[in-house]
Amino acid sequence: QGTRDHPPAHMALRDRLLATVVACFKRHGAAAIDTPALELRETLVGKYGEGARLIYELQEPGGELLALRYDLTVPFARYLAMNKITNIKRYHIAKVYRRDNPAMTRGRYREFYQCDFDIAGQFDPMIPDAECLKIMHEILSDLQLGDFLIKVNDRRILNGVFAICDIPESKFITTCSTVDKLDKMPWEEVRSEMIGEKGLSPEAADRIGEYVQLHGGLDLIERLLQDPKLSQNKLAREGLGDMKLLFEYLTLFGITGKISFDLSLARGLDYYTGVIFEAVLLQQENDHVEEPASVGSVAGGGRYDGLVGTFDPKGRKVPCVGVSIGIERIFSILEQRVKASGEKVRTTETQVLVATPQKHLLAARLKLISELWDAGIKAEMLYKKGPTLLKQLQYCEDTGIPLAAIIGEQELTDGVVKLRDVAARQEVRI
Amino acid sequence: QGTRDHPPAHMALRDRLLATVVACFKRHGAAAIDTPALELRETLVGKYGEGARLIYELQEPGGELLALRYDLTVPFARYLAMNKITNIKRYHIAKVYRRDNPAMTRGRYREFYQCDFDIAGQFDPMIPDAECLKIMHEILSDLQLGDFLIKVNDRRILNGVFAICDIPESKFITTCSTVDKLDKMPWEEVRSEMIGEKGLSPEAADRIGEYVQLHGGLDLIERLLQDPKLSQNKLAREGLGDMKLLFEYLTLFGITGKISFDLSLARGLDYYTGVIFEAVLLQQENDHVEEPASVGSVAGGGRYDGLVGTFDPKGRKVPCVGVSIGIERIFSILEQRVKASGEKVRTTETQVLVATPQKHLLAARLKLISELWDAGIKAEMLYKKGPTLLKQLQYCEDTGIPLAAIIGEQELTDGVVKLRDVAARQEVRI
Repeated sequence: QGTRDHPPAHMALRDRLLATVVACFKRHGAAAIDTPALELRETLVGKYGEGARLIYELQEPGGELLALRYDLTVPFARYLAMNKITNIKRYHIAKVYRRDNPAMTRGRYREFYQCDFDIAGQFDPMIPDAECLKIMHEILSDLQLGDFLIKVNDRRILNGVFAICDIPESKFITTCSTVDKLDKMPWEEVRSEMIGEKGLSPEAADRIGEYVQLHGGLDLIERLLQDPKLSQNKLAREGLGDMKLLFEYLTLFGITGKISFDLSLARGLDYYTGVIFEAVLLQQENDHVEEPASVGSVAGGGRYDGLVGTFDPKGRKVPCVGVSIGIERIFSILEQRVKASGEKVRTTETQVLVATPQKHLLAARLKLISELWDAGIKAEMLYKKGPTLLKQLQYCEDTGIPLAAIIGEQELTDGVVKLRDVAARQEVRI
Repeated sequence: QGTRDHPPAHMALRDRLLATVVACFKRHGAAAIDTPALELRETLVGKYGEGARLIYELQEPGGELLALRYDLTVPFARYLAMNKITNIKRYHIAKVYRRDNPAMTRGRYREFYQCDFDIAGQFDPMIPDAECLKIMHEILSDLQLGDFLIKVNDRRILNGVFAICDIPESKFITTCSTVDKLDKMPWEEVRSEMIGEKGLSPEAADRIGEYVQLHGGLDLIERLLQDPKLSQNKLAREGLGDMKLLFEYLTLFGITGKISFDLSLARGLDYYTGVIFEAVLLQQENDHVEEPASVGSVAGGGRYDGLVGTFDPKGRKVPCVGVSIGIERIFSILEQRVKASGEKVRTTETQVLVATPQKHLLAARLKLISELWDAGIKAEMLYKKGPTLLKQLQYCEDTGIPLAAIIGEQELTDGVVKLRDVAARQEVRI
């Protein structure tokens, strides 16, 4: 339940998608790492808030309490602390596990890939953060998924807003998760939840509402830096200062056109400490409405400066910022698109089929195909002693093999091969 | 316990190794598939003989009984039966799990990669089987692991030998597993185990010994086909006939030089029904003895015509033959070799570091690196506002970046970039 086999057509599309993502990660100088799918249960406990109940645990009679990893970020932080690594730029593509109620039509699985890029280390502010946004921008552009928008915010700005609206600090995180719903429900409903479920006063909710509905660019940052109340809050001032710096760098990268400083962005996870970001695909005007998978969040991330310290016996911190590409959602979109277009995805890369028109020439086929393999050419033949030429050419058409190398009696005598362009139905003797 | 993190240096070497293996699988027209790491427990039960106790089970309160996959062959057979696939050539590279006593110095882990290529379908005899041996030969040659030998046998020949030595059929499998130890212990010890532990008569053991110590090529096959007793056994006759055909095909492939028909090869798994094979690395004369990882089995496989049928409600059979590359063992060998050679494995592919000799040129670096990324060039920069040129060049040397693109005041004024060959210490203005 909640898992699936990936047949060759899936894998071919998935490999194409991952190749684009990995190429971008490598272009930015990232190294690959891998960690076990199994972690000690205690490593995962207390990291995912309500997500904790979704962790898969393993029976290990008389041994360690184990669990399947829930994401790649916590294992990364554990890896850094365990190996005392204070400086690394890495990517990691691997499966994670969540004992969730599967909703496979909406792309929610119990086993799925995550695809993470992170920069760990003590650096000058906002330079790695800007690179993470550049990476999101490059990948979404390279994949040609259509128009997109990258929302950016900072946990320190949000916390500053809550503080000047007189929200007690104990309610920051829960208020955050209500704010985060602004992309799915109108302000009125979010306001009701703040008052009804989270117990904020209507006045506090309204004051929060004035801020979290704002979005813009450098102009908005400047305006908030002048805001008489917000500019008094130390955290907010730091966050806004860094946001300004970030926008300067993004301007140099030439990507501010698709970036929005959006105060409604909050992100679910507890461990973020600074900049947070999320990329959404924008519904095209000519899009069909029955394609719900074509909108929504396709990448996200942020800064988490405290997580590595929780795994270090002395609490030594390693600042980190990273981005996670929502590969499963992007895969669904690409798959729908391929289906709609009627494009036939080849599942193999075979260049040539070695074929014979007569029945007793298996030996000639075996000899020729062996030479082709040894020369590095991707070649197949049918595993029959005497298949008909029609069947062999049909196999080429079915699987998209562009060429057939045909050897019959005459070719053997003449010491040549007849090379046939399957689509054009043209032959040359070589 | 029994698992490990793979740091960047591991991953770089591993990616190199897997690229060679995947290139070979694709050269032979295989498509990729993936299956979940989680399987229903009942799928795995009864497939691995004594291995069953090593299966990892999962807590799933009130739900399905789950287990982590133990190999890739059983999930492949389950996949074929479930999707009624009767014809496929696929490869699968993924992690498998065994709750074994870890012996990490000997490369025995609880989580490790398997790397399988299989051909499923009803075909003319020995053509796919020969291709599996060709694949082993290509991969071991491509990886330049040193001299190797591929041992080949057939379960039907072994069973025929047991039958004419009057072994009861109920003891075939257990006798098989004793025979399989002939590569690690002398005949005398194997004989003792047959008599002492397996309860065979000394005469029966001696008669088995006459056969299972034989190895050779076509000549041996011909001799056994003339053997007055063995040739009377139907199974053995079929096996020997197919072995002869196999050697004909291997001759056409030009690889018999490294193939040995070896009657001591038995292989552990229960599900083999025909040809079985195993590749071993041969100790070089000038090898150091303290490198024990450099000998032993590095690939194996065989024909299993009954496994898919066990998952089909109507028992419909899909004949299969496949090969598994022992990627973990090969990785250990390559790792030792890299260590011994002192070669420094690059963990990133960065082509150029964008550097500045003066302190206030961060903006220039960000602009230039952004252009390089957009042009598809792998580029890095230090995440500092004003790093010294020495530090920047040192970073190139530490990480193997071949070029530095340097922009200072003068270059900015002239509209050029100074491109430095780090190793040669030569610069050109472009």
